Amino acid sequence: MFVDMPLDELRQYLPTRDEPADFDAFWTATLDEARAAATPATFRPYDSGLSTVEVHDVTFSGFAGQPIKAWFIAPRGATGPLPCVVEFIGYGGGRGLPHEWLHWSAAGYAHFVMDTRGQGSGGYLSGDTPDPDASGAPQTPGFMTRGVLDPAHYYYRRVFADGVRAVETAREHPLVDARRVVIGGGSQGGGITLAVAGLVDGLVAAMPDVPFLCQYRRATEITDEYPYQELRTYCKVHRDQVEQVFDTLRYFDGVNFAARATAPALFSVALMDAVCPPSTVYAAYNHYAADKDIKVWAYNGHEGGQAFQRQAQIRYLANLMSV
Amino acid sequence: MFVDMPLDELRQYLPTRDEPADFDAFWTATLDEARAAATPATFRPYDSGLSTVEVHDVTFSGFAGQPIKAWFIAPRGATGPLPCVVEFIGYGGGRGLPHEWLHWSAAGYAHFVMDTRGQGSGGYLSGDTPDPDASGAPQTPGFMTRGVLDPAHYYYRRVFADGVRAVETAREHPLVDARRVVIGGGSQGGGITLAVAGLVDGLVAAMPDVPFLCQYRRATEITDEYPYQELRTYCKVHRDQVEQVFDTLRYFDGVNFAARATAPALFSVALMDAVCPPSTVYAAYNHYAADKDIKVWAYNGHEGGQAFQRQAQIRYLANLMSV
Amino acid sequence: MFVDMPLDELRQYLPTRDEPADFDAFWTATLDEARAAATPATFRPYDSGLSTVEVHDVTFSGFAGQPIKAWFIAPRGATGPLPCVVEFIGYGGGRGLPHEWLHWSAAGYAHFVMDTRGQGSGGYLSGDTPDPDASGAPQTPGFMTRGVLDPAHYYYRRVFADGVRAVETAREHPLVDARRVVIGGGSQGGGITLAVAGLVDGLVAAMPDVPFLCQYRRATEITDEYPYQELRTYCKVHRDQVEQVFDTLRYFDGVNFAARATAPALFSVALMDAVCPPSTVYAAYNHYAADKDIKVWAYNGHEGGQAFQRQAQIRYLANLMSV
Amino acid sequence: MFVDMPLDELRQYLPTRDEPADFDAFWTATLDEARAAATPATFRPYDSGLSTVEVHDVTFSGFAGQPIKAWFIAPRGATGPLPCVVEFIGYGGGRGLPHEWLHWSAAGYAHFVMDTRGQGSGGYLSGDTPDPDASGAPQTPGFMTRGVLDPAHYYYRRVFADGVRAVETAREHPLVDARRVVIGGGSQGGGITLAVAGLVDGLVAAMPDVPFLCQYRRATEITDEYPYQELRTYCKVHRDQVEQVFDTLRYFDGVNFAARATAPALFSVALMDAVCPPSTVYAAYNHYAADKDIKVWAYNGHEGGQAFQRQAQIRYLANLMSV
Amino acid sequence: MFVDMPLDELRQYLPTRDEPADFDAFWTATLDEARAAATPATFRPYDSGLSTVEVHDVTFSGFAGQPIKAWFIAPRGATGPLPCVVEFIGYGGGRGLPHEWLHWSAAGYAHFVMDTRGQGSGGYLSGDTPDPDASGAPQTPGFMTRGVLDPAHYYYRRVFADGVRAVETAREHPLVDARRVVIGGGSQGGGITLAVAGLVDGLVAAMPDVPFLCQYRRATEITDEYPYQELRTYCKVHRDQVEQVFDTLRYFDGVNFAARATAPALFSVALMDAVCPPSTVYAAYNHYAADKDIKVWAYNGHEGGQAFQRQAQIRYLANLMSV
Amino acid sequence: MFVDMPLDELRQYLPTRDEPADFDAFWTATLDEARAAATPATFRPYDSGLSTVEVHDVTFSGFAGQPIKAWFIAPRGATGPLPCVVEFIGYGGGRGLPHEWLHWSAAGYAHFVMDTRGQGSGGYLSGDTPDPDASGAPQTPGFMTRGVLDPAHYYYRRVFADGVRAVETAREHPLVDARRVVIGGGSQGGGITLAVAGLVDGLVAAMPDVPFLCQYRRATEITDEYPYQELRTYCKVHRDQVEQVFDTLRYFDGVNFAARATAPALFSVALMDAVCPPSTVYAAYNHYAADKDIKVWAYNGHEGGQAFQRQAQIRYLANLMSV
Repeated sequence: MFVDMPLDELRQYLPTRDEPADFDAFWTATLDEARAAATPATFRPYDSGLSTVEVHDVTFSGFAGQPIKAWFIAPRGATGPLPCVVEFIGYGGGRGLPHEWLHWSAAGYAHFVMDTRGQGSGGYLSGDTPDPDASGAPQTPGFMTRGVLDPAHYYYRRVFADGVRAVETAREHPLVDARRVVIGGGSQGGGITLAVAGLVDGLVAAMPDVPFLCQYRRATEITDEYPYQELRTYCKVHRDQVEQVFDTLRYFDGVNFAARATAPALFSVALMDAVCPPSTVYAAYNHYAADKDIKVWAYNGHEGGQAFQRQAQIRYLANLMSV
Repeated sequence: MFVDMPLDELRQYLPTRDEPADFDAFWTATLDEARAAATPATFRPYDSGLSTVEVHDVTFSGFAGQPIKAWFIAPRGATGPLPCVVEFIGYGGGRGLPHEWLHWSAAGYAHFVMDTRGQGSGGYLSGDTPDPDASGAPQTPGFMTRGVLDPAHYYYRRVFADGVRAVETAREHPLVDARRVVIGGGSQGGGITLAVAGLVDGLVAAMPDVPFLCQYRRATEITDEYPYQELRTYCKVHRDQVEQVFDTLRYFDGVNFAARATAPALFSVALMDAVCPPSTVYAAYNHYAADKDIKVWAYNGHEGGQAFQRQAQIRYLANLMSV
Repeated sequence: MFVDMPLDELRQYLPTRDEPADFDAFWTATLDEARAAATPATFRPYDSGLSTVEVHDVTFSGFAGQPIKAWFIAPRGATGPLPCVVEFIGYGGGRGLPHEWLHWSAAGYAHFVMDTRGQGSGGYLSGDTPDPDASGAPQTPGFMTRGVLDPAHYYYRRVFADGVRAVETAREHPLVDARRVVIGGGSQGGGITLAVAGLVDGLVAAMPDVPFLCQYRRATEITDEYPYQELRTYCKVHRDQVEQVFDTLRYFDGVNFAARATAPALFSVALMDAVCPPSTVYAAYNHYAADKDIKVWAYNGHEGGQAFQRQAQIRYLANLMSV
Repeated sequence: MFVDMPLDELRQYLPTRDEPADFDAFWTATLDEARAAATPATFRPYDSGLSTVEVHDVTFSGFAGQPIKAWFIAPRGATGPLPCVVEFIGYGGGRGLPHEWLHWSAAGYAHFVMDTRGQGSGGYLSGDTPDPDASGAPQTPGFMTRGVLDPAHYYYRRVFADGVRAVETAREHPLVDARRVVIGGGSQGGGITLAVAGLVDGLVAAMPDVPFLCQYRRATEITDEYPYQELRTYCKVHRDQVEQVFDTLRYFDGVNFAARATAPALFSVALMDAVCPPSTVYAAYNHYAADKDIKVWAYNGHEGGQAFQRQAQIRYLANLMSV
Repeated sequence: MFVDMPLDELRQYLPTRDEPADFDAFWTATLDEARAAATPATFRPYDSGLSTVEVHDVTFSGFAGQPIKAWFIAPRGATGPLPCVVEFIGYGGGRGLPHEWLHWSAAGYAHFVMDTRGQGSGGYLSGDTPDPDASGAPQTPGFMTRGVLDPAHYYYRRVFADGVRAVETAREHPLVDARRVVIGGGSQGGGITLAVAGLVDGLVAAMPDVPFLCQYRRATEITDEYPYQELRTYCKVHRDQVEQVFDTLRYFDGVNFAARATAPALFSVALMDAVCPPSTVYAAYNHYAADKDIKVWAYNGHEGGQAFQRQAQIRYLANLMSV
Repeated sequence: MFVDMPLDELRQYLPTRDEPADFDAFWTATLDEARAAATPATFRPYDSGLSTVEVHDVTFSGFAGQPIKAWFIAPRGATGPLPCVVEFIGYGGGRGLPHEWLHWSAAGYAHFVMDTRGQGSGGYLSGDTPDPDASGAPQTPGFMTRGVLDPAHYYYRRVFADGVRAVETAREHPLVDARRVVIGGGSQGGGITLAVAGLVDGLVAAMPDVPFLCQYRRATEITDEYPYQELRTYCKVHRDQVEQVFDTLRYFDGVNFAARATAPALFSVALMDAVCPPSTVYAAYNHYAADKDIKVWAYNGHEGGQAFQRQAQIRYLANLMSV
């Protein structure tokens, strides 16, 4: 069944943005600090047993210079410069094994798959990147409330900074055409995509798929599904910290990043998706400040378009690149 | 938690096989009929948008000459002869889109992905192959009980014959080295793998992953999970047909096929898998008549080893091929 | 809780009908073909062990002349002509055993219980009628999507034609007063009742109970319950066939049949029924073109009025017949 | 899946009985008191709208002379003497409407359907008989723990006495052949059947179907299903009353009644029945002191044989009566 | 997620009250009868092993003079007169052990914890008070439908009368300052609080926490959660008694009692509470006839504010008492 | 139902302990480091609104000198020296509010309630203590796998060290009689109790209630319940780290601590507890090296004896203290 407003209303849904005054300053400072602490990335050849692609095990400097893992996968023997897709991963997953990331290299792209710090033990894709957590504030199990009382310590401050640094790292690779970098990902990966799209210029495209991390407060009010439910659980216990929680989250709302984006975007949304309810996706889409299109999957839940969406993305990029 | 016997007992578990006297005759007749009705396969180029692989949309003659769809995926520009993996799909799924099948071509193989007749509308991989059902006998929703009162009309008679014909079709492709054909698949795909391994000679390897379709009766007695539950539902209603159901299934038990296999095999089993309980897998493994090895995933459910298993398969085949 | 609109709105709910131009031609051709292929029905005495009723095991010609089973149950020793209730069965069930159908004969009627082709292995009432499926197109488990891409092959084309032929068969039985034939059934049986009411003239009454098979698209948008969920699953996978699915279903919508009905009708609806949501029932009721009444069961789910409804039906028919 | 011991072990399972010394005295006193307080039953004609059966709305004196409702249903026009089936009802149900009880009269029997005091508001069959509860001791919702701390006030003392009085009432009806009274029922009805079989002589047969109310303590140790779960909930809260609870239940265990039975019996048991686990049924069956047979439904849960069991019962009685 | 209207609408929600004409007469008669039948309460010292509080095991005369249990807990050595909190308990619970009721004595109050008749075997707090049920009318398991067809026999008539008598009993204790008696409780305890607040004058405060037993009919229409679900189950079976059920409940609706209250009140409500939906709580709050305040717990379900609410209550009373 | 071995076997169950050679050295070093880094605890008066107890908000030095919060609650006006109960909290909870911890002071004890680092946002008791996590290794949501690949970084190394330091802090308070310190807690609190009992001498008693954190590996093999399920999820993903996980956990197994305990102990176990299965509790109990007793709650799940256990503890301590 449809879990949110009718499609007509979704298309018109443009909620007022709620941004702290120092939103841009906060992010500028965060990224400046990360870049200042950065050391050169390492790309170590990795024997995956695959013969038509070359895989490198990457370590780059993310938030505060902390080491972040990634896979760099490219068609074997390619000489470049290649367009490159930087991919962010869904909630709970890590970079997994290279065998799980073969579509973009098969489509002729270099593919940079960023691990998500701390994640990758949630039941599917495994992860390898620590999330050193200096504050260690009490939290609801999961990652949504890690450090949520303070924007400086909130988990996604670190993750979004990692994401920006992933793009910068990919751009520096000799095989990559730095003017043709695409970002994308599904669910949490879509949320990171929106953040990076609002923080980085010169991207050729952004492809947020059924994006998470938009309109946090509304999400807790209209769905009981995880991971938004983690926020609700935190607020359920810490009844006296509710406003503080949502004050923090204003720095991390995909809607606010969307309003700063400059790259053309291909979104997707699923009308039966209670995990990332359609109105939270449309809030970001309708505020998105650059050229944009959206695939609507009427009969899908959070799985969205899956391979159909991937196919649409390949065509979308082919069109963009050929212009 | 572990859902079946302790591992020590599993390793010793060798139940008596229950085979109809005309088991081999039944299958010989079935395959003879299929071959007699066969027409040449067609391989139509398919524009997937992918650039390092070539995809063909295949139609070949399966059971009784009926048309079966498949994908044929190979590294672009390969001149062959290539080893080829013929892959069978899990329950409910169809061949999906080529973007979902990129690992074997990335590993340097030709890859032949057989659609499963009638399936492919179950919620994930889409399918394109009809299952004309001449008898149309009343059945429990799903495929496990389609025609189950009569071996001649049982659904898996058609599917297993399709599987044999898929191998024969792959072998005839000019790019394929007919002496280096591998079969494999997970769950239902593993069950089809066992059947084809018992019906086809000269395979270089068989790789049944957490195989389904073994020891049907025992399975209904020790688990409530689907799809074995479909058999239980049928027997629950048709209380007077229980023996007839299991008489039919003797022709289709992976254990009986395993005892006829000639190709080396790499199995997998998961000790927390209530869908395909470990003892039903070990029953087939312990009866398997050729060289064999098994990966045991102690902490996994029916997902088994996933990419870890894939990686093990790539290495296993590399070793086999290099001998 | 109430699962749909308030009762006031339900009573006014009259959605625009969506009918293909050749709706009537399609059904005329279907029924003409069935009648042309028909052979005389057989009524074989059946020893049920019951002494106050006589039971016959019926085989009659349904869609395309295919054999359909039924029970014919009448008070022992009756000489007729008797009024006759032709009954259609709920989703998943078959004609079961005669012991499960004793109320209408106890009320003095002949009772013709039509088996539903292919069904009757779903967990309760057993079935005995095959559904030979010439196309065998891929389908979601169940019956809702069998052949759903093409009106000519859609499952309910065959079932509705069987239903019309059941009425014609009952009318020909010497014990039956052909002018006093009633049709009825619950859930799927109610949906078949609506279809037959729109296709057959001269019925004394139609009694669709919490009818299924109305407003398919809306149903998938407002409920997640089975069996409508089967349509959703199909559309979830086959994202590119959604419009084609609902184009087919326009030929099978109870709302369109209701608008053609000529017999007086006694409906029922349950306000807590998420399986057949009240608005889909009222859509048919409000479009129903003949005399009509509806029992509203405010606190019931899909079980509806059960014996209370049966009692109401007995009284309703007694009144009708006595006029 | 099978929920209890293998069938071989079930057939041998003969646990030691645990009976209070005054078991027989307790019941003799209970029944003497009921009979002393009894007043003549009333049989009021009931207009059910059915024409081939005659229905009477019965009120008879049960435990302590309290009024109990029943239906008396017989073939219209029968002159008797007829054999009569006295039926007891499953947990939560009441006598419902006469339309729900048509099979025994259709088989030529008089049918006496006893309402269960206090029950009949559980979701299906409605009930009409109060259970005045003088002690009103705190209880877990349901009926299993009503008065459970004291045999004198335990709910089933009243119900079993009602059951005995139902047989005596039926025997007194002019249409009934008092030497040919059968008792039967499913689940709780089967448990009451066992109790009455142990308390009443001269019955022509007892037919306990998947009987409940046997081996209470063991049941709570091997299943979590309701209604046995009510006992567990009580003991969970009242940790200090556990032994007292099970001391009371010794007076009400079907196993103890079975050992006193004198009528031939047809049991049924279902091997996938977690509500009334097979070993608790076999404990009663194996202790049953008269001629006996049991239908084993291997693939059924608590629904057991349903119409198939009913058919078996009709044949069983026909054989018994014809001797 | 929010389970009811937005907070803005809740604050305005003032449904028309539905009161029987003899509402006040009914309750006056009930209380007069209880007082007439009352005998003096007993306070028996209880050795709880606790050293800073003194515990008494109380038996007082409730409805119709029937004996009701309670705990009376006070700071050891207090000489009084103390303010006293009379507490009513949530659905399914009883008075438990004194160790579970230590907060009010720790805050310097005498604490009178009334047992709830018949309850206290539901899984948590144990109970010790019988509910002799003279009518014993058929009921859905639980307490919501016990005697629901007749206001004179409805379960909550007895409970509310017990509640009034509990206040009167507490007031008579020498340690208690009769002018400073507070009533309170959560869920069912909140519903009893509302009833007593409408029936007793001179209370210093009432503190209904997430109160139950308000707007019964609306509750059954908007939620499926227990215990309101018990009413729905009853109405589902007894389709012909629906109006009679809700006629009875008009005498017991917290909304009607709220409109008669004279003591200042501190309510609480939780916006994610589907057990006692916010609009049913606001209906009582908005009709409450005296000074009032309400704590809104936006992110809580039926647990509401828990210790945070308790802290708020302590402060609220401290303020009230100091005036 | 019983979830583990029969009680007779549980009583005999004495599995071989699996201890690393440097178990004692590991813990000596850990505690030495904590003590070396410690600074004096602060006890800040806290206005809880309660009048018969005095509450202090405590901050003390735990693992590596990190600040840990606690409540110190004592009867108001007590002059000491008092016996003191140091309490550890169940999984997911924090120290909450003082109103939730009133029983031990009511029984005349000083009560020291240690917050659990990082926890207290799980849905019930709130927490206030950070868990700075220097390694930040990827983890499954929750706390069971935080740092699980390395004993030096494993979460419970920090928690157990906090627990030892809590005892040392309590002993230093002037109101406390350092020779009469008791430790206790339920579930995770029971697991911490076992650890501290094995690491600290001179305790007057240990009271592990349904203890968690025993026989980790066996637990994952016999139950699917959380929190042990977190370990399973980790191993499911990180199939290659299973042995490393369980190597780490040997340093943290309650069984190994039990074998080093010197204080008399009162355990509890619940036979229907699938969260902390009985055999894992008995493994610790049967290895416990000092005087011991165990309360067996046959009909309880993980809630165990609740107030009944508390009452037993009060009596147990009263006996011990009076000797």
